[in-house]
Amino acid sequence: MNPSNHVRIVEVGARDGLQNEKTLLPAEVKIALIDRLSSTGLKTIEATSFVSPKWVPQLADAAEVFRGIRKVPGVGYPVLVPNLQGYQRAREVGATDIAVFTAASEAFNRKNINASIDESIERFIPVMEQARADGARVRGYVSTVLGCPYQGEVPVSDVVRVARRMYELGCHEISLGDTIGVGTPAKARAMLHAVAQEVPMDALAVHFHDTYGQALANILACLEEGVRVVDSAVSGTGGCPYAKGATGNVASEDVVYMLHGMGIETGIDLDLLVATGAWLAAQLHKETASRVTRARTAAA
Amino acid sequence: MNPSNHVRIVEVGARDGLQNEKTLLPAEVKIALIDRLSSTGLKTIEATSFVSPKWVPQLADAAEVFRGIRKVPGVGYPVLVPNLQGYQRAREVGATDIAVFTAASEAFNRKNINASIDESIERFIPVMEQARADGARVRGYVSTVLGCPYQGEVPVSDVVRVARRMYELGCHEISLGDTIGVGTPAKARAMLHAVAQEVPMDALAVHFHDTYGQALANILACLEEGVRVVDSAVSGTGGCPYAKGATGNVASEDVVYMLHGMGIETGIDLDLLVATGAWLAAQLHKETASRVTRARTAAA
Repeated sequence: MNPSNHVRIVEVGARDGLQNEKTLLPAEVKIALIDRLSSTGLKTIEATSFVSPKWVPQLADAAEVFRGIRKVPGVGYPVLVPNLQGYQRAREVGATDIAVFTAASEAFNRKNINASIDESIERFIPVMEQARADGARVRGYVSTVLGCPYQGEVPVSDVVRVARRMYELGCHEISLGDTIGVGTPAKARAMLHAVAQEVPMDALAVHFHDTYGQALANILACLEEGVRVVDSAVSGTGGCPYAKGATGNVASEDVVYMLHGMGIETGIDLDLLVATGAWLAAQLHKETASRVTRARTAAA
Repeated sequence: MNPSNHVRIVEVGARDGLQNEKTLLPAEVKIALIDRLSSTGLKTIEATSFVSPKWVPQLADAAEVFRGIRKVPGVGYPVLVPNLQGYQRAREVGATDIAVFTAASEAFNRKNINASIDESIERFIPVMEQARADGARVRGYVSTVLGCPYQGEVPVSDVVRVARRMYELGCHEISLGDTIGVGTPAKARAMLHAVAQEVPMDALAVHFHDTYGQALANILACLEEGVRVVDSAVSGTGGCPYAKGATGNVASEDVVYMLHGMGIETGIDLDLLVATGAWLAAQLHKETASRVTRARTAAA
């Protein structure tokens, strides 16, 4: 294990989680969610996405939500932007933390944005340049790092190349995402190890979906490899657009429970996080996907 | 990792799983379940329990089920017995693989059988002696190894003492169970390491419940420590009698998916296991707890 005894959780429930939830939440509920999350001790809370409302109706209220949330000093509220237009909308409401998104799979990029991997990265350059000029920080997501719904296997060399390029372009942190949740611990660890040969480990994060139940085991393997930033979503919101009915993001409560049980600090109050997860599940009219929240709220 | 590239799964769904399911299944469905499991390549399938029907109504048909199942050569079908009377009932229907059960927690033993840990182990001696005389194999379960619903923390030294004593009494394998699923990877690994100082690692198994979502991560940590026998239940049946509504046994499908993804052999056909899990969930009128089965059976 890396000697550092602290892990930073990047809470992605309000963006990556909600964008795959069918129940549309009003802006005030999203604002309440983020404000509750701000009280738990989380230091990074992804707030929304300035994508086209046509693509993601759930996040059509991005500007209203971002304006409405309490900005707690010391807490970052990154927002996802697909292009310079989205970046400018985000900047208009005062966002200083930005996230951009690409995939390590050629087939995924072709299918989603009709571009090669390299072309998709080129499209970020105007965003990166403007962000540098504005002094905004940019986080880079690399998706499909352990498998792709279209091409199946994704070569590790492609993951390394994409992550290194985003780092070179100025992303301060690269989040390596197993979008469809197919990865297992040895592969996750080998992938992280390969990327860490080209990008400093302290600029890397891991992002697992629990589609096949592997997320916590994968996180453990990556912690052993030295990563210290983990993405997760309170209540395990979301799902998998490639397998309807499947489990979504790994639940923040379950990650924090594991970390605290291992003596790793997160600065997060697990009780408040569980209460927030239970509250969110009620708003979405669904059972929470967090086993910790289910156990804690179960009748004895 | 231990150099052995093979893990044996001990399938406990038909006993540990079903005994905590409210929906009572007829004997023929249990027989069909075990016969289906026999076709998957599993080498150890716990079949039932010869406890008092007053305690576990679900398993009141133990003799009928054990008689009815197909006994595939090379596959073991252990049955749980609480005492010599249960042992004799099991022997009458031809069981040659027996399992006995105790807890590493003083409070758990006091509450459940009004005996100390040491007294509870003494009660096995007649069973062990008779089994030795009959040439029957006995597996020992040690429960509450990482926490107890009554006393909370369980000293590792108590787990080691109980496991060693059961091994000395002649159990060929000791299954270390986190009954309430509260353990996390570092604690699971440290507990296993301590027990393995006194009992050979190849006589140890791990048994995790997914109550707090930690089971696969705990299994990974214990594999790294060298264990090569893992208990699990198809479809993640069961629940937690101490937290109603909570998740039960770790799902065999999710364990096998992880192992195969790591290049570890189990001899199990995952497709058949998933089909069996989906079938069992339908029999129980509930959604499967296996995320692999959920993903594989989800609409794309």
